[in-house]
Order: sequence, then structure tokens, then C-alpha cells
Amino acid sequence: MPGRNREIEALIEMMARLPGLGPRSARRAVLHLIKKRAVLLGPLADSMHKVAATARECSVCGNIGTTDLCEICADPKRTNGELCIVEDVADLWAMERGGAFRGRYHVLGGTLSALDAIGPEELRIPQLAARVAAEHISEVILALNATVDGQTTAHYIADELAPTGVRVTSLAQGVPIGGELDYLDDGTISAALRARKGI
Amino acid sequence: MPGRNREIEALIEMMARLPGLGPRSARRAVLHLIKKRAVLLGPLADSMHKVAATARECSVCGNIGTTDLCEICADPKRTNGELCIVEDVADLWAMERGGAFRGRYHVLGGTLSALDAIGPEELRIPQLAARVAAEHISEVILALNATVDGQTTAHYIADELAPTGVRVTSLAQGVPIGGELDYLDDGTISAALRARKGI
Repeated sequence: MPGRNREIEALIEMMARLPGLGPRSARRAVLHLIKKRAVLLGPLADSMHKVAATARECSVCGNIGTTDLCEICADPKRTNGELCIVEDVADLWAMERGGAFRGRYHVLGGTLSALDAIGPEELRIPQLAARVAAEHISEVILALNATVDGQTTAHYIADELAPTGVRVTSLAQGVPIGGELDYLDDGTISAALRARKGI
Repeated sequence: MPGRNREIEALIEMMARLPGLGPRSARRAVLHLIKKRAVLLGPLADSMHKVAATARECSVCGNIGTTDLCEICADPKRTNGELCIVEDVADLWAMERGGAFRGRYHVLGGTLSALDAIGPEELRIPQLAARVAAEHISEVILALNATVDGQTTAHYIADELAPTGVRVTSLAQGVPIGGELDYLDDGTISAALRARKGI
């Protein structure tokens, strides 16, 4: 485009490829970065270089960190024997923000999907069965998304683990905290009613 | 946060400060970058370093480029004598995408604002008067935003330039191309009616 420098153009194009940013917000972000180039653009580039050089997947659970064993797997204070299964690293981070779970994780790296030809071998499901045996796991908590693919994957894993005799649970489904019934979908209300409990 | 590495954490915090990104989209973007670190994160960091080292404001018009004189000011094929005044570099880029203007630009760097204590000296208004005299400008086109601050600034500049005798025009206001009357605000419809013309 005339009036725009080739290097700035290249930076905008790369930024526009990030999820959540389009061409317009990429232009805005790059202009903002250039205006604050001393305090923002330089340090951001340094930080990206650092992460690009050191980031790697944990060889045990699939979480992202900078060491072969991630901070959670290496933490001696976490409870052994409880394994929380999540689809993605973002879900692991979401669980950790909640702060209610003190065990270990296993990141699948996606869900089973016939449409996208993603079978158990494409996910970390074989490693999961191996961990359950090797780490003396007493409970596997399926924290998969409440989507069709997520629930299909949950059922597949529960079937796979049935012979091992390990206890398999999943997150409760119901009304979210602060949720208003009038704004909830019918499926959630039905699920919450079926799972009702005494006060 | 537990489970997240300090360097990754720092990168997410910096990304979350960009306009258009919040904490959640910054996390998503950083995870995406880490997953594609070889093809995306490294090159993006390189590109940012390059821009951080070379980006600068054009000493004449205020556009952003990598040379003292920006590509538009340095282009001998652009029409001399026509000066388009914009608030911001993003507006200059928007004008260039339109491709209808072939003259030179002058970036103010904002609008007059009593609330934010931004007077003519904080903008590039003194330089504008100097350019009008030095570059034998025949027409100054005010392409400022159709906001209160933008129009206040336009009137101020028109008053300032009145003694020089230069022709001062502004972008037409009316119905946008593809716009439906039913969705337009009353002010735009009134302005379009007042500025009606024969077919």
C-alpha cells in the first residue's frame, strides 16, 4: 500500500494473523506500538524472542513452559493420584485460575473429531493410559468442554479407562454462578434439573 | 499464576496492553504464537525489532516510515500544492486505501481539546502554517473526523489559514455509499439533505 513502509506493512500482516485480531485492529495495534516503540515495541520483541527460544511442551502433561518438566509436574506440593484431563493449555490455565484443583494435569491437545480426521493417536490419549498405570492414579477428572466433540471425547476416554478400574469423573453441569435462568439455554436448565440435589 | 511460566506470563501481560486485546485474547494470541513458534513467533519478534529500530516520524508531514522523509513526501509523482490534513497516521492510511487523493499530507497528531489541555502548540498546527507558505499550497483539504473535536479543530485551522488566502475545503458529509437511510442517524440525514445536489 502506498504511504506505508514495507517493514511496517509486514509487521501489520503478521499481527493480523493472530486470533482475535483482524486487519483493522492489527493496524491500530502496530501504530500504538510504533508510537510507544521505546517502552513497548522493543521490550515486546525481546519478550517474544525469549519465549520463542525457550517455550516447549512439558514431556509429561503437555502444558507449555520453558523446562522439559512443567512447573506443575515438577511441583512436589501438588497432590499425586488425581489427574485432570483438559483439551488445551488454555483450559489448563483456566482451571488454575480457579485454584480449586491441586492435582496434576493431562493436556489432550484437542478433541476427537471424525470430520477433521482426529483420532485417539492424534491426541495424547495413549500417553494418558500409560500415565494412569504408571503414576498410581486414583481419580481421572474429565474437564472437557461441554460441546459435542468434548463430550464424545470424554465418553471415549471413560470407555478406554474402564478396564483399569480407575475412578472417572467429570465436571458438574448446571447453572453458572451468577447465572440467570431467563438467559440460560434449555439444555443447561434441563441438565441442572436432572442433577438437582438436596439443600 | 501457577502453571504458567514467568516469561510467558510477561509476554501475555504486554500483549494485553495492546488496543483491541484484553487479557483473554492476549492469552489466546500468545498460545497460538507458542504453538507456531518456529513460523510465527520468531519472525514476528524479528519484524518488531526491525520496526522498533527503524520506525520514525516524517519530519515534514508526520507520517510514519523508516526514513527522515516519508515515502509520500519523497514521491516526485505526487501532486504538489494540495495538502490533506488528517488527525492521525491511521487516517492518512485510510485516505491512501481510498486511493483518490494524489497530493501531500499533514498529520496533526490529534485534535484540539480543552478537556485534555491540547492546544495548537501540542499539534502540528504551527508547522502547517509554515508549510502552506513555503510549499505554495493552493488548497488545504481538511479530512478530520466528523466528531465535535474534529470539527472544532477544522474550524480553528480554517480561521488560522484565512489570512493566507489559501483555499480551504473539507470532506463532504452525507449518506455513506451502501448506507441505508433507516439505519443512519438524524444528523447525517439532515447534513445530506442540506448538501443535496442536482442529478
